[in-house]
Amino acid sequence: MKDKTFLMIPGPTPVPERVLSAMAKHPIGHRSTEFSEVLKKVYSDIKEVFQTKNEVLIFTASGTGAMEAAISNLVNPGDKVLSLIIGNFGERWAKIAEMKGAQVTKYEVEAGEAINPEEVKKILEADVNKEYKIVTLTHNETSTGVTNDVKTIVSYIKKHGAISVVDGITSVAALPCKMDEWGIDVLISGSQKGFMIPPGLSFLAASEKAWKKHEECKNPSFYFNWKQNRKSVLEASTAWTPAVNLFVALDTALQMIKEEGLENLWKRHERLGKAIRAGVKAIGLKLLAKDEATASNAITAILPPEGITVPEIRSTMKKDYDIVVANGQKTLKDKIFRMGTMGFVSERDAIASIGALEASLYKLGYKFELGSGVAAVIKTLAENK
Amino acid sequence: MKDKTFLMIPGPTPVPERVLSAMAKHPIGHRSTEFSEVLKKVYSDIKEVFQTKNEVLIFTASGTGAMEAAISNLVNPGDKVLSLIIGNFGERWAKIAEMKGAQVTKYEVEAGEAINPEEVKKILEADVNKEYKIVTLTHNETSTGVTNDVKTIVSYIKKHGAISVVDGITSVAALPCKMDEWGIDVLISGSQKGFMIPPGLSFLAASEKAWKKHEECKNPSFYFNWKQNRKSVLEASTAWTPAVNLFVALDTALQMIKEEGLENLWKRHERLGKAIRAGVKAIGLKLLAKDEATASNAITAILPPEGITVPEIRSTMKKDYDIVVANGQKTLKDKIFRMGTMGFVSERDAIASIGALEASLYKLGYKFELGSGVAAVIKTLAENK
Repeated sequence: MKDKTFLMIPGPTPVPERVLSAMAKHPIGHRSTEFSEVLKKVYSDIKEVFQTKNEVLIFTASGTGAMEAAISNLVNPGDKVLSLIIGNFGERWAKIAEMKGAQVTKYEVEAGEAINPEEVKKILEADVNKEYKIVTLTHNETSTGVTNDVKTIVSYIKKHGAISVVDGITSVAALPCKMDEWGIDVLISGSQKGFMIPPGLSFLAASEKAWKKHEECKNPSFYFNWKQNRKSVLEASTAWTPAVNLFVALDTALQMIKEEGLENLWKRHERLGKAIRAGVKAIGLKLLAKDEATASNAITAILPPEGITVPEIRSTMKKDYDIVVANGQKTLKDKIFRMGTMGFVSERDAIASIGALEASLYKLGYKFELGSGVAAVIKTLAENK
Repeated sequence: MKDKTFLMIPGPTPVPERVLSAMAKHPIGHRSTEFSEVLKKVYSDIKEVFQTKNEVLIFTASGTGAMEAAISNLVNPGDKVLSLIIGNFGERWAKIAEMKGAQVTKYEVEAGEAINPEEVKKILEADVNKEYKIVTLTHNETSTGVTNDVKTIVSYIKKHGAISVVDGITSVAALPCKMDEWGIDVLISGSQKGFMIPPGLSFLAASEKAWKKHEECKNPSFYFNWKQNRKSVLEASTAWTPAVNLFVALDTALQMIKEEGLENLWKRHERLGKAIRAGVKAIGLKLLAKDEATASNAITAILPPEGITVPEIRSTMKKDYDIVVANGQKTLKDKIFRMGTMGFVSERDAIASIGALEASLYKLGYKFELGSGVAAVIKTLAENK
């Protein structure tokens, strides 16, 4: 059906009507008092979502922009960086660091696995001369549907003395991510995931320790410059012309997050993730995530049953049931499909999407007990209130 | 009156309802066939607006992002850069180049003046060892309301052999700017000016010669990387998650530009600029632009009459007549006010804004022949059909 599409990809995620309406207003001047009032609310509310007392810088750019903002304000050519990689987005940290002239050591695990924090501990303990200046990692890896134990990993990085740089693009405003309590040094996120607004903004907060390292950075970015952007945050302004309409949208979305409450929001994502996994398993499909304990509550990566292809499933779900799910990326293309439950997603959506997956597989000739997936979703939702 | 505000600042500029409606739709997946179709149109149409056969890269970032995209993909530490500066935005090129480690020589003129191309010719002829690798300049300087003769200046840069890097943020889609015909090497622009959409996108095109210099760039930007972004243009895709809604808005705006015709659009801006200047002069106010020949048709910088302050004029125009005009920047703050006529601005707006300026000055006690400004606007519009 036309104009009925529902996105269950890992971003952009569905946007509430309230946010779309706010965004559709005529732009106001970015140096006006009215806009400064919007910024004051936004800069204050987003700190709560980041669980930090540090200022949160907001860039007009997508998540990769915030990744560059992190690295280009910290790294000097020759710096040693340790990249913990569990998928495509972890790999991206390494690429950016290399492009800035860093010497990158990669610690990689198989797709579907999380980093074992004890392995990180060993690597860092072996670095007796404290050569690693920075350790990069991904909180929630959307390419594989796996969530790292950032809390424990960061505690080991802290002990070592390196700066932890964490991609929270699909975790902040979806999964528990407590910057200050966990001791994360640099945390970034993006607008089109848990934050429920369209793509175009990204966020970065840095600890005092990270700010000190920034002081030594020789050729930092101009557009993404930390100092210039923090100065503007403190003045309830922006360094450069911001995407005014997206900021107004963000203001509305942050209000909705406040109304729901962060703990409730985390719990909702947990409930939805568990329900989707239960539904998928009930109809006999396999998850890419090797371990239920580290399976992502924001996105689920699923292997197709034998004899049915990922393109067939995606195309049937889209054409016949108006639900868009994502393909795998790079080497995982056509090997998995991914269902996002980030942001503005309700229990109805979980029921509908597993229902639509059942309907699609039924049409494609897969043999299973029809209704068993939806039954598992309903039960799991009820049991996880 | 509430919700009646009309922006005559140098960006964001007014956005057509058709564009706002397009932007307010639910975002679609950025890797979908539907979005790829949007991109195909956008990438093709924008080349016409840039008057170039080069691919135009589109960044999710505001204009300053495109400035960084230009410099960070060209400059290596130690490179000699000549910056031609007639105001705040020309100065920004120099700052970015310095931040990237370039040795910058500044050639500056007084606020209100344009660069004399013959002076540039002299400077470049004196550089017999061809030490300048890059020359930066601003086409239309919004901080002073002055337009440089880019055509002539670039012809001298071409002769010298350096790469010309031109800020066309407030000229492209407003004033004649012919990339290929004039031989510009790198041309950038932004979304919230002549392009009639909200801020959040910026554009860059580069000549073959600039691409060759890029090949030698040691630590280019990752997010703004030319190669990665051009590859995506050729695949009707984007390198990173784009601001989907702004791209859809851009598609609509480019359609409107096509319907009007680029020549007509340039002529309209010329007519509006001339009319505003005639109106301002008729009521006895002075322009910052020293010479009618280089006064900007996109924005007019005006000195307040003696005894009346810029904040008084701005506040009266806004509160009583719902028109927002800009203050001066930095050293020009409270010394000038600026009226933009970029983008979605009609003859009615020119009449209304000079009328509102008259009404404001009348209230503030300025002595002049009431109606003389509007009369000059009407006459100038009629004479410049």
